[in-house]
Amino acid sequence: MNPVLVDVWRGEWVESQHRGSLAVVDADGALVLALGDIERPVYPRSAVKALQALPLVASGAAARFGLSDAELAQACASHSGEPAHVATSAGLLAKLGLDADALECGAHWPRAETQIAAMGARGETPTALHNNCSGKHAGFVCLGCVLAGEQDRRAFLRGYVEPEHPVMREVTAALAAATATDLSRAPVGTDGCSIPTYGIPLRQLALGFARFGTGQGLSADHADAARRLRQAVAAEPFHVAGTNRLDTVLMQQLGERLFCKVGAEGVYCAALPERGWGLAIKMDDGNTARAVEVVLAACVQALLRLSETEHALLQRHSELAQRNWNGRLVGRLAATPALRGALGSLA
Amino acid sequence: MNPVLVDVWRGEWVESQHRGSLAVVDADGALVLALGDIERPVYPRSAVKALQALPLVASGAAARFGLSDAELAQACASHSGEPAHVATSAGLLAKLGLDADALECGAHWPRAETQIAAMGARGETPTALHNNCSGKHAGFVCLGCVLAGEQDRRAFLRGYVEPEHPVMREVTAALAAATATDLSRAPVGTDGCSIPTYGIPLRQLALGFARFGTGQGLSADHADAARRLRQAVAAEPFHVAGTNRLDTVLMQQLGERLFCKVGAEGVYCAALPERGWGLAIKMDDGNTARAVEVVLAACVQALLRLSETEHALLQRHSELAQRNWNGRLVGRLAATPALRGALGSLA
Repeated sequence: MNPVLVDVWRGEWVESQHRGSLAVVDADGALVLALGDIERPVYPRSAVKALQALPLVASGAAARFGLSDAELAQACASHSGEPAHVATSAGLLAKLGLDADALECGAHWPRAETQIAAMGARGETPTALHNNCSGKHAGFVCLGCVLAGEQDRRAFLRGYVEPEHPVMREVTAALAAATATDLSRAPVGTDGCSIPTYGIPLRQLALGFARFGTGQGLSADHADAARRLRQAVAAEPFHVAGTNRLDTVLMQQLGERLFCKVGAEGVYCAALPERGWGLAIKMDDGNTARAVEVVLAACVQALLRLSETEHALLQRHSELAQRNWNGRLVGRLAATPALRGALGSLA
Repeated sequence: MNPVLVDVWRGEWVESQHRGSLAVVDADGALVLALGDIERPVYPRSAVKALQALPLVASGAAARFGLSDAELAQACASHSGEPAHVATSAGLLAKLGLDADALECGAHWPRAETQIAAMGARGETPTALHNNCSGKHAGFVCLGCVLAGEQDRRAFLRGYVEPEHPVMREVTAALAAATATDLSRAPVGTDGCSIPTYGIPLRQLALGFARFGTGQGLSADHADAARRLRQAVAAEPFHVAGTNRLDTVLMQQLGERLFCKVGAEGVYCAALPERGWGLAIKMDDGNTARAVEVVLAACVQALLRLSETEHALLQRHSELAQRNWNGRLVGRLAATPALRGALGSLA
């Protein structure tokens, strides 16, 4: 039974609770902290986009097509579908002589209601470019343009989301290597954007991000790629998420001291390079909208040495005020004392 | 520790799980079924709107102002903010000589992205009429117009969301009577729409809905009001929720055989008049978006004698297919064998 990591208070009463598990691991694979079950395979979903982007850089594709920091950050992103995100994915595809038709991620509306209303006002409907994964998919397509060699790009790329396509084999191999996991034996599902998602224990996901943050344990070209991706995201954190999104807010503040990435169904992965640690979180109930963010914020707050400003920012997100439609303060989400206590021992 | 009631499958792997508790009670208060903790107070949130609407009818206010079935259904509703919902709340207020300015629920965008985009295309921004609670609040205001007597309506109504206002005292008294709970000793929080929400054990909430469905245990005027509200919702189920919403879909199919109402933070309450039972559900993690609906559907499927068509409808909602942005079948939400087994004993 995994412990309660987040209490949802309304007034002076705990209204709901979120259970979950958490692993902190160093780049040698030594376990620093475990809460709950860290051995059961977990689908990491979008939390491993940065590991899946390693071949984009290591293959030389990113350099060959002159990818910008924003484009690389967006290859690691679950973006909000804001106009700058749409333009960035479109721009990357244009460098390849391609357009949105090359993307196999499907379409959905942007995240924010104001953005949806603005699209309505412009008479627009969502395309694959608005999909939160469009940057990742544009990156897959870019990798595919190199793997295609002399073949026709469009023909080669078709079906790139399938597990056996050369693009996805490269991507999966990078994920397997970083996490030191045999994915041929792992549970497998289909992600929201149609690529495979493999079940990987939190312990191995945390190892993958310890390696991503330090380069230790990665091949030399993947270590270089990891450094390039971390630099790109730190330079353009808006492109990894969007306005008022936690990944963006935290990396705007902390730069390369932190790499963090949320995933669907209550997953978070992060690298803390200065400590040499990676961490991975999974909420039992799959709550990405609020619970896992509180846990991630509590982790960063406890595990990095922060300025007063930074500490206050993390405190706001690890004990998150809840306001109603009239702006009244009605409650809070709070990292539990059990979580705070366990993290405190590592401060 | 409450049991797992819903498994979230992706491929052939359980990706997430939802725990919760459930009470089924008859109109005499006898416990029919308990799963998990049914004694801990739970904020019922919007799941008790129908009980809160009893004074609207019992006071004579609904008759005096000639409220329609749609307006009464909407007084019990968490609607989707579709144009017909907005028009219905506005129409009720117009009967009182009032408009949206009388509502103290706050504003938010409609539920569906297509509705938000359509508002954007029309250059509209959300008002209190779009708030999912606007019908309930219009009902409170209507009740207030009777309670005001000779006083100025607008002045009397001001602050009607506060616990000590005469309107809210009537509403709270109806809730306390139906659930046989002393709310002066209950935990209290502020709901999304700014009215108080009181912590009530699931056992007592289920009792309230057994009474609501049968009239037994209610005062004569509240029993009449309950019958009127059930008829109105069965006649106009679109107005209690909206397009493709579970409450609407189920009551469109089952009419007065079922009254059910979802609430925030993973709450559901329902009345099954032909069995004489009420039921109340709370998901530990507060998941309203998916988990509690699966549990409610499994309950209705097991506890009512259904036609083949009806059974198939409930089966679709108690084992709910999950599709991704490309429309691919990627998984399912499923009532757990433990839940099915416990309900099966009552079939």
